[in-house]
Amino acid sequence: MKQYRVLIQPEGRQIDVQEGSTLMKTLKEAEIDLDFPCGGGGKCGKCRVRILEGNVESSDMEKRFLQEKEIQEGIHLACFTKIYSDISVEVSKYNPSQHNILLANQEMQVKIEPHICKKYVEIEKPSLGDHRSDWNRLCDKLIKQSLEDIRKLEADIQLLRKLPETIREAKYNLTAVTYGCEVLEIEGSDTTQRMLGMAFDIGTTTVVGYLMELNEGKELSVVSTLNPQTKYGADVITRTNFASRGDSGLKTLQSAMIKSINNLITEAVEKAGVDRGDIYAITIAGNTCMHHLFLGLSPRYIGQSPYIPVISEPVVLGAADLHIDMNEVGKVLVLPNIAGFVGADTVAVLLATEMDASEDIKLMIDIGTNGEIALGGKDKLFACSAAAGPAFEGAQISSGMRGAVGAIDHISFDKTLSYSVIGGVKPQGICGSGLLDAVAGLLDLGMIDKRGNFISQEKEKKPEAEAFIGHIVQHEGMKAFLLVDEASTSHGRPILITQQDIRQLQLAKGAMAAGIKILLEKQGISVEDVKEVLLAGAFGNYLNPHSACGIGLIPKELEGKIKMIGNAAGTGAKLALLSANQYKRAASIAASVEYVELASYPGFTNIFAKSMYL
Amino acid sequence: MKQYRVLIQPEGRQIDVQEGSTLMKTLKEAEIDLDFPCGGGGKCGKCRVRILEGNVESSDMEKRFLQEKEIQEGIHLACFTKIYSDISVEVSKYNPSQHNILLANQEMQVKIEPHICKKYVEIEKPSLGDHRSDWNRLCDKLIKQSLEDIRKLEADIQLLRKLPETIREAKYNLTAVTYGCEVLEIEGSDTTQRMLGMAFDIGTTTVVGYLMELNEGKELSVVSTLNPQTKYGADVITRTNFASRGDSGLKTLQSAMIKSINNLITEAVEKAGVDRGDIYAITIAGNTCMHHLFLGLSPRYIGQSPYIPVISEPVVLGAADLHIDMNEVGKVLVLPNIAGFVGADTVAVLLATEMDASEDIKLMIDIGTNGEIALGGKDKLFACSAAAGPAFEGAQISSGMRGAVGAIDHISFDKTLSYSVIGGVKPQGICGSGLLDAVAGLLDLGMIDKRGNFISQEKEKKPEAEAFIGHIVQHEGMKAFLLVDEASTSHGRPILITQQDIRQLQLAKGAMAAGIKILLEKQGISVEDVKEVLLAGAFGNYLNPHSACGIGLIPKELEGKIKMIGNAAGTGAKLALLSANQYKRAASIAASVEYVELASYPGFTNIFAKSMYL
Repeated sequence: MKQYRVLIQPEGRQIDVQEGSTLMKTLKEAEIDLDFPCGGGGKCGKCRVRILEGNVESSDMEKRFLQEKEIQEGIHLACFTKIYSDISVEVSKYNPSQHNILLANQEMQVKIEPHICKKYVEIEKPSLGDHRSDWNRLCDKLIKQSLEDIRKLEADIQLLRKLPETIREAKYNLTAVTYGCEVLEIEGSDTTQRMLGMAFDIGTTTVVGYLMELNEGKELSVVSTLNPQTKYGADVITRTNFASRGDSGLKTLQSAMIKSINNLITEAVEKAGVDRGDIYAITIAGNTCMHHLFLGLSPRYIGQSPYIPVISEPVVLGAADLHIDMNEVGKVLVLPNIAGFVGADTVAVLLATEMDASEDIKLMIDIGTNGEIALGGKDKLFACSAAAGPAFEGAQISSGMRGAVGAIDHISFDKTLSYSVIGGVKPQGICGSGLLDAVAGLLDLGMIDKRGNFISQEKEKKPEAEAFIGHIVQHEGMKAFLLVDEASTSHGRPILITQQDIRQLQLAKGAMAAGIKILLEKQGISVEDVKEVLLAGAFGNYLNPHSACGIGLIPKELEGKIKMIGNAAGTGAKLALLSANQYKRAASIAASVEYVELASYPGFTNIFAKSMYL
Repeated sequence: MKQYRVLIQPEGRQIDVQEGSTLMKTLKEAEIDLDFPCGGGGKCGKCRVRILEGNVESSDMEKRFLQEKEIQEGIHLACFTKIYSDISVEVSKYNPSQHNILLANQEMQVKIEPHICKKYVEIEKPSLGDHRSDWNRLCDKLIKQSLEDIRKLEADIQLLRKLPETIREAKYNLTAVTYGCEVLEIEGSDTTQRMLGMAFDIGTTTVVGYLMELNEGKELSVVSTLNPQTKYGADVITRTNFASRGDSGLKTLQSAMIKSINNLITEAVEKAGVDRGDIYAITIAGNTCMHHLFLGLSPRYIGQSPYIPVISEPVVLGAADLHIDMNEVGKVLVLPNIAGFVGADTVAVLLATEMDASEDIKLMIDIGTNGEIALGGKDKLFACSAAAGPAFEGAQISSGMRGAVGAIDHISFDKTLSYSVIGGVKPQGICGSGLLDAVAGLLDLGMIDKRGNFISQEKEKKPEAEAFIGHIVQHEGMKAFLLVDEASTSHGRPILITQQDIRQLQLAKGAMAAGIKILLEKQGISVEDVKEVLLAGAFGNYLNPHSACGIGLIPKELEGKIKMIGNAAGTGAKLALLSANQYKRAASIAASVEYVELASYPGFTNIFAKSMYL
């Protein structure tokens, strides 16, 4: 059989192939980076290449996917193209666009595959010889131009009602806005360049929104606000209780969230100087309770054993159904949940970290009132939720506060006691990361023991502890560590680390550490097998890894493997917004991650009790 | 290879087959009437049979489609079943139900395949070891029990909002109402027996509704009313003009129709003593203008050349979207159109007459202000609309009236003049069928000539005409035929057939006859090739075929082949309601029928002019 030479540009590689081979086979074997989304079945029209030299014929099937102009330019589909001469082929330029987005301080590549597509069409005018309906002539054109494997389009009745006038006013030149096989909107003239979306990360405490341009994937503005539901309850449990009080509780919480999202949209479009009517898609990540409250679903049964959510699968709704002030025909795409206490925010983090595709075993920790933990790699991922309680957020700590202005966020016991205060003001209290540093420091100095008790015997302390002996005071009949005296605080009261504070931290870290241990057991691996620890979320970003490992919140063996990944849930929401395939991947992550219910895990109480040791 | 014997019950036939043959192959070869909707791909679970004797193993794949009870009863899927022993198999009882429905005076078989399905499920209770969401556990069960090839179900947000409470109140025993892959509703306990639908035929003048039970296909009641839009215009042109006056005209006409439909629903359910909440589906057939007005779509561009509808494809909407007073999650299924003047009513007629599957060439005529004509068989169907004008409905005729009480509907010139009056009262006027008889009779007697003129030369008349000479009178300077003198009418004015009346009838019949001629030309056949003439609609049901052929409305050669089929549009709407496959077939009929635009047909004016000869 004859052989021909294929020159692949711009790489310049040459490959010899047998007569009649398909170009797809050739490119695959040469490991050229070209995607075949439909597996080479001739259905998606995406494997576009340009034949620079050589004879290649276009088949009728192939022409269905190409515009006249493209055919003239030598564009072909690699899956249809058979080689019967030496050819030169250009690959890269006809790939769907790739864009970088920022994840923590690391750039990530994402291929833009928007949920909502805009296509400009020039449709044929009707005549007595062409009596197709308005809808029919629009669809015929759209289907012909479509790169998707769409054979049938669906019309919305509102769209149909305005279709005849819109078509005629626009003189048959239109931009169609489609979502899968639904035609959502038609706009006069070519508006394909106007296409925006927003990604939202709804945290229990904070809501963050990212306004994105959807053709290039550029971030236009970032906005955030306090979750307005906090005034009805600081944590998911109190909000669940509030929402379960008849219908009005749930409606109150949902309305507050929708209003807040709408305000963020206003702020984001004003910042960027764009029109909210061009926002056609938003994605939503949040824990299962926030997810339910956003959708107006009752979180009641998440709040009681066996902690059952209403739905875990992805939910897509119309903007109008939820009263979101974006383009009224736009779509709201809510990310899926894993379980009652491992929500869409964790799915978004897994999406951003690509743990589901990782060759290495990684451990992801998102610390909050509930700490979500995921462990595994491409073969298997386990996840659990550890009821850490509010200690990490400063609640139920004698001088505790959130990581806001006035909070001591880091403490050093290096020869003398020093600390930093958020905002550089007089300290008002201590936040989670500060408490972690304090307890880790006291432990390191031998001033508290493994059980978390202040040590009375002078002899057991390290020599370095001498400098801090004066800080040990009596508080309510027990020892305490005086961090800041009353003269130096903003409110004139001292800031102490009490025995009780240490207990609270032990409970919190014990829950997290037990969760990690159990996931390691489920995965059947030891700590050493973990190649990377990904610390997600605001708290994860602030804590001192040395302190976290010092008190055993994270296994000590992993101290050198810790990486802060910032608001990875937000990044995941952005990925799901920019790419319909990433959104689909979120669904498969949510469905494939195995949720581990800690409370029913054999021996949990023992493991938890042991994990409380510092 | 070994042979085994298969005994097929209840037919009692025995077939010898080779070892390892599938039962599907065996039944197909034996031409046993069992459907394989998915082609035997093991996807639909519909080819159920019961193994009475012999050893057959159930595969896991097969079990996916069967309930435990069914497996115990020996139910198998023919496509999965391989024969490794002599077996006895019962076929008929496990077929989807077949029911007869009445078409004119002829029974029709229809396989019930409802659009909306109810399935009773007993779902597993959640536990700490089974943390699936409420939605997930419902879907898992539904998909397992489903006979359809459904891999994914879609939730409505309203349904999700009530799902947790409904599930728990019903103690996990529910009936799910599904439409394709959408779960529309869940009802506590087993409500599968409560399933109703209504089929509507929206005529320009009359609206008819049929209330059907959807498990057995039984007709529960029939209701009808005058189309409430008649007060805004008697025909489609005046209504189109009314609807094109700003937004409010269209809304007025739509609201009037919806209100009327809702009143008919009330009347139908009261007659039958059932609950409107159990109506889950309605189908709508009507001409393209009625179709548009029902959906709130502008008929404006149907009313002007080149007569373009907004949409021809089937439209499915939620009951709530159109404010139809049925179950609020039910579906409104609107039949598709062929063109601006050949609408969903014609599609419904073709569905009912099965012309699209006919070996013989048939001619369907539906006479009204616009007469729809279809010609052809399974290979090709042509359709056109003839602008007959209102003469057949009694309008623009000197003594014309609708076919209501007081109308002369039939006339005989057999020796003496006799006529029948609807309602048996004193005559008030003449309706279309009466006019047809009058003109046909006068022509037959030689009292009018082929041009429609009253004959002045005595000699040309037939001897039988002598008896009627006295009826020839002068009216407004022209001859006329005195049908009833003033003493015998209800209003004291004579009922005449004027020269102008004859002209009007000639115009109407000429348009129809020209349409038939052109379709014969398009089909490339002669009149003799037509095996049957199907006369649809109320007028078609009343006219005297001999008169219709006498004046050339229908070619004389076809007189013996005429069959009245009554309200076939209503029958088509019923078929589309009872069977999702019939509704799909309507779409393929609408898409495949070739519409012929008479006005632009070469030589139309000539053909029309010639067709006016009597």
